[in-house]
Amino acid sequence: MNIDGIPTRTLRAHPERRAIDIIDQTRLPHALHWLRVATLAEAAHAIRAMQVRGAPLIGATAAYGLAIALGQRSDDAWLREAVLTLWETRPTAVNLHWALTRMDRIVAPLPPAEREAAAWQAATQIADEDVAQNLAIGRHGLELLRQLPRRQGSVLNVMTHCNAGWLATVDGGTALAPVYAAHDAGLPVHVWVSETRPRNQGLLTAWELAQHGVPHTLIADNAAGILMREGRVDAVIVGADRIAANGDVANKVGTYLKALACADNGLPFYVAAPRSTIDFDLPEGKDIEIEARDGDEFRRVHGLDARGVPSALQQLPAAEAVANPAFDVTPARLVSAILTERGRCAASHAGLRQLYPEVAGD
Amino acid sequence: MNIDGIPTRTLRAHPERRAIDIIDQTRLPHALHWLRVATLAEAAHAIRAMQVRGAPLIGATAAYGLAIALGQRSDDAWLREAVLTLWETRPTAVNLHWALTRMDRIVAPLPPAEREAAAWQAATQIADEDVAQNLAIGRHGLELLRQLPRRQGSVLNVMTHCNAGWLATVDGGTALAPVYAAHDAGLPVHVWVSETRPRNQGLLTAWELAQHGVPHTLIADNAAGILMREGRVDAVIVGADRIAANGDVANKVGTYLKALACADNGLPFYVAAPRSTIDFDLPEGKDIEIEARDGDEFRRVHGLDARGVPSALQQLPAAEAVANPAFDVTPARLVSAILTERGRCAASHAGLRQLYPEVAGD
Repeated sequence: MNIDGIPTRTLRAHPERRAIDIIDQTRLPHALHWLRVATLAEAAHAIRAMQVRGAPLIGATAAYGLAIALGQRSDDAWLREAVLTLWETRPTAVNLHWALTRMDRIVAPLPPAEREAAAWQAATQIADEDVAQNLAIGRHGLELLRQLPRRQGSVLNVMTHCNAGWLATVDGGTALAPVYAAHDAGLPVHVWVSETRPRNQGLLTAWELAQHGVPHTLIADNAAGILMREGRVDAVIVGADRIAANGDVANKVGTYLKALACADNGLPFYVAAPRSTIDFDLPEGKDIEIEARDGDEFRRVHGLDARGVPSALQQLPAAEAVANPAFDVTPARLVSAILTERGRCAASHAGLRQLYPEVAGD
Repeated sequence: MNIDGIPTRTLRAHPERRAIDIIDQTRLPHALHWLRVATLAEAAHAIRAMQVRGAPLIGATAAYGLAIALGQRSDDAWLREAVLTLWETRPTAVNLHWALTRMDRIVAPLPPAEREAAAWQAATQIADEDVAQNLAIGRHGLELLRQLPRRQGSVLNVMTHCNAGWLATVDGGTALAPVYAAHDAGLPVHVWVSETRPRNQGLLTAWELAQHGVPHTLIADNAAGILMREGRVDAVIVGADRIAANGDVANKVGTYLKALACADNGLPFYVAAPRSTIDFDLPEGKDIEIEARDGDEFRRVHGLDARGVPSALQQLPAAEAVANPAFDVTPARLVSAILTERGRCAASHAGLRQLYPEVAGD
């Protein structure tokens, strides 16, 4: 994708400098700031502090983080520590564990001296695959969008939640890949962008859609239902942080409410995600660990009064209890279809196995 | 209720000074600021700018606003202009129109010289009735809460949306009246407080619950669903801005999503409101006018980066399109019961007529 007209990925690898550059997404959309990550600790912090976020990008960053770590030391003990450190940064997005497992399987059997180079190569492969898979999701999604009835005029109104665009991946996006494909193919498309409290990732979505010239409108998360009832939404497409073997979907908190509203209004609710997001080892969504993030990140964004005037009191009273679950689980019965790099399938055990017949056992 | 331990209503009338004092709710919870309202224009502004908000308090403020206006002039033309000015401040809360109709019926037939005194008296009656009705809602609601199964231990977990507490009324609250009654009766109760974007009225709810010592936890609106799925919610109680004759409920945007989540999780969803909120003239909810508020009020609260640091850029780009519907409509089928000063009824034409048999017509 492009930033200010210049093609770029969200993550730039510099194996020769044993570092990667990432966009500090906590500063978007107010500032575009590239950040150098050159140690294991910096890589782990970037994921934990959500400087990078989005399941596919978390996976790729962890892979590169391991390559960076192996440039610091490459013995077995350090390899184990590096994998564990990155593994524990965030619990819900399975792409993180998928990427680390894949990396570990490649580098662990090698002699320490060969590990670093192999890790850079393997991380690059993960990143390149992500880009290719997202392009494929876009192609499959475009077919789908072409078939959807448009309730109001010629424009297709797609609603999304959080950011599952190119900022959430190495490039191309998951939920937004079909939107970009549609826009590029001349299908008139407009996106309802949910603010996505408490971290406001909707602002990232608005920013990246603007970079690509896709018409969009920002809304409060609360407005999803009324817009559907008024016939102003044709479909919802979201990404995923983990899809269980039965099709249950963990995604950014609030996703489940949108899925309920789709069901109540007879609208399709699609989940777009690559293979690495599907956790075939997990029978159903209720077993997915839901990350509870620090209440402080919620308190801090209230350092304004209701008119938006920064108040002297920059925080809610510390005594104010805050619960801050970062994800929720949408049961498979509310998911119209899952869209992956291989095409579309029903959100069910059978549907997913049909798309990935090579997955062993159950 | 009490503020810092001192009993008060949210609105203090001073007929001798031809003025009322209101709490400027746009500055809560960061600052408690009482504001004098002494002209028709100030009263209209207070409602329009949401210095006072909450359907019952809007109604009472409009009633007093008319009394204040009649102290400025009391001829027929001015009376009509005053009623119209107040009428048009906000479209959705029917209590506003109910209060103005009632006031107009009392003062219009009087000679101009007698209007002001009668208006103060009538406004005071509306305010006093509001307090008495909310107490009654609390009593009926307490019976209801006592019967509810508690899913986790001894504490009853009630979720609410927006602010329908004493700040939204002259005193006592609507949705929160049963909560206060339960707390005062020694029934252990904890409240999940939805932030209520984009205006963050949940912060008002958290503030007033803290004044009364009721345990509560602030959450993002998006978290409602996951908390229900985890069994951490026993019931949802919300207020209303307008209830149609068939039981459809217009309330703060996002209410519908909570009602859907209740239905999906087998939880009761209650609407608490006084008679003045029921619009027997309106057959169903789809005819309720939904206020679209200025997108700027949404943009302004984004003058922070995601870490809560006030950014130089105090606004989203003006070009960023924002849709800002203030309310949504929850269909009667999702409402477990409506709770009024007369007791509880089904959210249906028959249910409402049973509670208010004196209402004429079909």
